[in-house]
Parts: sequence; C-alpha cells; structure tokens
Amino acid sequence: MSVQHNYSSTLLEDAVNEFAKLPGIGRKTALRLVLFLLRQDNSDVERFANSISILKNEIKYCETCHNISDTDICLICSDLSRDVHTVCVVENIKEVMAIENTQQYRGLYHVLGGIISPMDGIGPGDLEINSLVNRVQTEDIQEVILALSPTMEGDTTNYYIFKRLSGSNVKITSIARGIAIGNELEYADEITLGKSILNRIPFSV
Amino acid sequence: MSVQHNYSSTLLEDAVNEFAKLPGIGRKTALRLVLFLLRQDNSDVERFANSISILKNEIKYCETCHNISDTDICLICSDLSRDVHTVCVVENIKEVMAIENTQQYRGLYHVLGGIISPMDGIGPGDLEINSLVNRVQTEDIQEVILALSPTMEGDTTNYYIFKRLSGSNVKITSIARGIAIGNELEYADEITLGKSILNRIPFSV
Repeated sequence: MSVQHNYSSTLLEDAVNEFAKLPGIGRKTALRLVLFLLRQDNSDVERFANSISILKNEIKYCETCHNISDTDICLICSDLSRDVHTVCVVENIKEVMAIENTQQYRGLYHVLGGIISPMDGIGPGDLEINSLVNRVQTEDIQEVILALSPTMEGDTTNYYIFKRLSGSNVKITSIARGIAIGNELEYADEITLGKSILNRIPFSV
Repeated sequence: MSVQHNYSSTLLEDAVNEFAKLPGIGRKTALRLVLFLLRQDNSDVERFANSISILKNEIKYCETCHNISDTDICLICSDLSRDVHTVCVVENIKEVMAIENTQQYRGLYHVLGGIISPMDGIGPGDLEINSLVNRVQTEDIQEVILALSPTMEGDTTNYYIFKRLSGSNVKITSIARGIAIGNELEYADEITLGKSILNRIPFSV
C-alpha cells in the first residue's frame, strides 16, 4: 500500500527526505528524528548540522596508511611507540577501529579502501594496493598481515596482494580463521570447522 | 562491558557523538550513518546538513492551530474547501499527519503541543488550551473532536478541555474507541472490548 504523506510544510518534508536517504532509516524513523531535532535548542541543532559538514569538508586520509585522520599523517602512523615493522592490511577504516578496540595489535595499518569485486566493478587499480607494494619496498616492513573478510572477494584480494608482494623479502600472514570464541561447535558451519581442524594450534593453558 | 572507541579523528568522533544523541540511534548505527555520509558527494552532505538547519531556523507554527507550517497560517487553516465548523484537538503535529493520511477528515485542527502530565510537570498552562477556548468563543465552531491518546493523561486532558468548554454552545465528541480493524477479538484487551460493546453502533453494510 502506498502511503500518502501530508507534512503541511515543505521544509519539514525536505528534512525528512534527506534523513530517509540514510541507510536503514525509513520515512517514519526519519520523521521521528527530524521532529526530535525540532524540539532541541537552536544551538544543539546547529552543532548537529555543523558536525557533519565540518567532518566532510575537513577530514583527511593519512598519506601513509589511508586511514581517516584529522592530520596529514594519522595518529597511528605517527605514534612512535608502535611497531613499524608490522602492517595490517584492512578493507576500510571500520576494520581499523574494530582491531584497535581489541587492544591486541600494536603495529601499523594499510587501508585498501575496498576489496577486489568484479561484480561491483572494483579492480586492483581502484584500491590502495600499489601504495602498499611501495611501502613494502621502501619502508622497513617485516610482516604484512592480511585481515580482509573471509569471503570470495576477500580471498581474491588476499591472493592478488600475495602475488604482488612475492619476491619482496616480507613475511605474509593472514588472521586466524576458526570457531568464534563462545560459539557452540555443533552450530559452526562445516567449512570453518574443517579449516579450524586443519589449522589446529598447540594447546596452551 | 564498556567499549573503548578509537576513532583516530576527533572530527569523526564529534559527528558520531552528534548522531548518537538522536533517539534510537546507538553508537554503532551513528558510526554507520556518518561513514555513509562521508562516502557521499560534498553537495549531498551540504544538502543534508542544510535541510535540518533551514528547517530549524525557518519553520513556523500556525498562529491559529499551532500546526507546523512554512507560513504564518498553515495550509490546512487557509484551505477554503475545508469545514471550518469542526476542530479536531490533537496532541502533536504527528497526529495531524496521521489523521490527514487517513483522508477521512476535512475539518480543521488544534495542536495542544502535549497533554496534561503532572509526572512530567506539564500542566494546562503549558498547552494551547486557552487558545482553543478562545477559538471556540470567537470562531463559528460547532464541533470539537477530542482525538488524544486513550491513556490516563489523554483522558485527563480530555476532561479538562471538556470542563473548560462547558457553557459554550459547542458539541464535544471523542474519537471512537474499539477493536482495531483486522484484529482478532480474542486478543483484544478487556477494557477496549468492554467499551466496544457499551458503545456499539448500528450495523451497516
């Protein structure tokens, strides 16, 4: 059923239309968000609107690792306490955040900006792969960790990078794939379960 | 578990914080929305940010019915084809939209801006009740339809308005309460079911 909308205000309708363009936000939610903002103070609404235009206008991408940054070189790349010999290759800045949140990794990153996906018309040339090869050739990098999603596109991209880096004297590793901690074994898919047996590790307590 | 967030950009963090203030939007969703906007064209992001500040700065409330409006008098109040003798009293502009969407009502509205709720410190003086009484006294209104939510606060507000309008020569009605169309009778709550029997209507086909 198509629902007719009577906003009695084109200004309101415009704002609802803009919010409804956001992913996962339908027209009802958009209206709820806009009416919420309408009830806030002018200064709060200004701050909301400014935060996104300032972000869009002033954000930079790190010249080294292409992570999102306020400065030309990001905070991670310019952190002298980090291990500069290890580079973790990720698809997007979201994965940088996810890995940083684990607090288990002290090396650097390299953000590809996507993965090879012929279906979406994304080839190696659209990604930051040349700059990765360049980093491996010019910086003192000893290990490249491939941390892409375990999908067909991720595996293709892993393989492409592996081929591009073969010949350079760098260790190439991949994040471990196995049963997620806390998951019931009987519900694990068989491919993951199979890989987890093949790639079994010494037991440690 | 408290999650530490590493945005590596204060601009990004600011924008995420602003989005996370919206109702029903958590930090993960806020980040997803902000990263979505970052991928859009500059002009699209400008339009998004402007739509909400323009709305906030330029929106008006109808001087007659207090509905949201682009003009001093809203489109509904200035629509000459509507029935000016009937006024439907609603809590907020969302209810105006909901009733307009039914396309079953051709009268005017009066938006209270809330309902009497002592728990939230909202008394009759905080609502557009005096202006409603004034409209009944000065305009040629023959019927006031009370269309507030069937809650204790709604009933209290209905009763207060009823008392304030008693003495004026206006018919006061309330929206019908009963079993929602399409609902199974056995699942209806007993108060609604009881009222729907007491207020039974002549059968028509």
